[in-house]
Amino acid sequence: MAMDGYRGFLGLLVSALLVGFLSVIFTLIWVLHYREGLGWDGRAPEFNWHPVLAVTGFIFIQGIAIIVYRLPWTWKCSKLLMKSIHAGLHFVAAILAIISLVAVFDFHNTLNIPNMYSLHSWIGLTAVILFVSQLLLGFFVFLLPWAPLSLRAFLMPLHAYSGLVIFGTVIATALMGVTEKLIFALKTPGYDTFPPEGVFANTLGLLILVFGALVFWIVTRPQWKRPKEPASLRLQPNGGTPEGVEGSMAINFGNTDKSDSELNNEAAARKRNVALDESGQKSTMKEESKHLPRAQLGRHQTGRRSHLFCGAADPQSPRGSSSHKSSRGNADYGKLGSENWIKQEGLDSPQNYSEFSRLTSGINLW
Amino acid sequence: MAMDGYRGFLGLLVSALLVGFLSVIFTLIWVLHYREGLGWDGRAPEFNWHPVLAVTGFIFIQGIAIIVYRLPWTWKCSKLLMKSIHAGLHFVAAILAIISLVAVFDFHNTLNIPNMYSLHSWIGLTAVILFVSQLLLGFFVFLLPWAPLSLRAFLMPLHAYSGLVIFGTVIATALMGVTEKLIFALKTPGYDTFPPEGVFANTLGLLILVFGALVFWIVTRPQWKRPKEPASLRLQPNGGTPEGVEGSMAINFGNTDKSDSELNNEAAARKRNVALDESGQKSTMKEESKHLPRAQLGRHQTGRRSHLFCGAADPQSPRGSSSHKSSRGNADYGKLGSENWIKQEGLDSPQNYSEFSRLTSGINLW
Repeated sequence: MAMDGYRGFLGLLVSALLVGFLSVIFTLIWVLHYREGLGWDGRAPEFNWHPVLAVTGFIFIQGIAIIVYRLPWTWKCSKLLMKSIHAGLHFVAAILAIISLVAVFDFHNTLNIPNMYSLHSWIGLTAVILFVSQLLLGFFVFLLPWAPLSLRAFLMPLHAYSGLVIFGTVIATALMGVTEKLIFALKTPGYDTFPPEGVFANTLGLLILVFGALVFWIVTRPQWKRPKEPASLRLQPNGGTPEGVEGSMAINFGNTDKSDSELNNEAAARKRNVALDESGQKSTMKEESKHLPRAQLGRHQTGRRSHLFCGAADPQSPRGSSSHKSSRGNADYGKLGSENWIKQEGLDSPQNYSEFSRLTSGINLW
Repeated sequence: MAMDGYRGFLGLLVSALLVGFLSVIFTLIWVLHYREGLGWDGRAPEFNWHPVLAVTGFIFIQGIAIIVYRLPWTWKCSKLLMKSIHAGLHFVAAILAIISLVAVFDFHNTLNIPNMYSLHSWIGLTAVILFVSQLLLGFFVFLLPWAPLSLRAFLMPLHAYSGLVIFGTVIATALMGVTEKLIFALKTPGYDTFPPEGVFANTLGLLILVFGALVFWIVTRPQWKRPKEPASLRLQPNGGTPEGVEGSMAINFGNTDKSDSELNNEAAARKRNVALDESGQKSTMKEESKHLPRAQLGRHQTGRRSHLFCGAADPQSPRGSSSHKSSRGNADYGKLGSENWIKQEGLDSPQNYSEFSRLTSGINLW
């Protein structure tokens, strides 16, 4: 089951990368072989940068950014490092998306073609604006260490949800773009005569759709989520949830039987965390140190300085190693680490355990 | 928090219904006011049934079918009834989608316009085929009582995932359809001159997208999920999970820290359920009866006959009442019911509780 799960993940990851890469290659072949190639002259070759950069950055790179936390060989890396990679990939995607917009606006203006009249342009521009807002929000709230946990807890479900909705919207926009371009460009012979370019670009559309479906499956499988750490390691802003999107996805879709009372308790837990947070990084870490098993204390006491590094595999640590076996093993190690911690904290009575769970669900929301 | 949550649900539900209904109205105004109206003559008026039926059935009704389990005033209704409503709405959506296809093929054939050359048609037909397959699979595996629990457990994550991917694909297809139709139909003045019809149909596209986003938010909020029942009530196929899609959504995205070992235990739990299932309905119910608190035994012993009815609110029951207060209350009652059951079963030691949790997660997968 575990081995199958890992193999399934690997198979789907390779499929997603292959289909995403094929989408980029198909787009390049489309503009280089069937269209006017690439250039920056305000004419067709400049327009052609629009599909190339949109598919490469706004679809392929965004898709990878969404699933980056799921790679088991990154589980030994610090959360800050993974958050930075997640944000960095989204930043690159945003830059490419913006250049792709410049290309099409420049092309339209040179040829006196009106801008922003089509549904493709309305939804596409909306997606870029939402994407950049999401990137800025993620950077200031989740990457920088100053946002209070209550704000992170409040915004994370929205951040994860918006990420997937924007990704899906970008894919829909690309399919509209392919449709538009083929109708405009294919005159003799027309699109309706099944010319090679039409069939080729339709296939590109299917590849983009399949890439989106694969990313959506990978990011929503709980068994492929980065293992959790004991709550104490999650009490400082950048020692926080191991993942951005799918961490919150899991939490978001995760509380399968939360009653209102539990949700209230989570709110209380978050209030408590905010108090710790507001008491300042150093005092927070001191506070946590009291509650840490020795195995975790060492790593924990290295504090912020180690946050941008990948540590060695550690049986007490939920962070994985890069080998298949170890990365599988570490899922168990992470769980084991938490369970040992629960016992050491005397949380193994039903009441205390349930209190512990509520607190960690509260903390884990960001 | 709870009251806010409920108000938020109500607000988003009303928004979704309003935006979905507006999409249908906008489609009708588009074909009746800007186009050639409706008819069945093989010409434009027959084609116009295509957008009307696609938006009404394949988008609006499918969206409602996806969120139907989240309505708190249905929580007092039996799972079989809710599954039947979920399946029934999808069946209506499938019929309307198929008629919308007949309309466009008939239109094309009458005017000798080639079929299936556009990306819209490729993805649209694929979506209809997947949707019908999903409907048949759901009917035979989840609605009819004969499928073994192991099969339900295996297929439910795929069922929930496919449901949302098909829904998103249908929305993307509709946006491509609006784009295609506007480019084909708006010649003098052209689409690029911002004619009223172009702006109006673009707005329809935005409404469809917003409807999809609202449905996706509603179906992925754990706090709006129908409360769980004690495991014993979930051991018979149609006493199963309270919901189809979002039940499995929650489970699917829900196991926020499942280690491989836990997943193996779930597999074992499912095996155990299959044994119970294969031992037949009656003996299964007998088996369960031993483990039921008295309050639940009464309702449980009525067996299948009560499965198509909505029961009265019952403090021991996780099924809600139609009033706001009671439906909130019942979330707690449901939890309370489970917790009492855990104590009565002597599962309130950490080891037994954890074993119980693993079993119920296993059972709850279908």
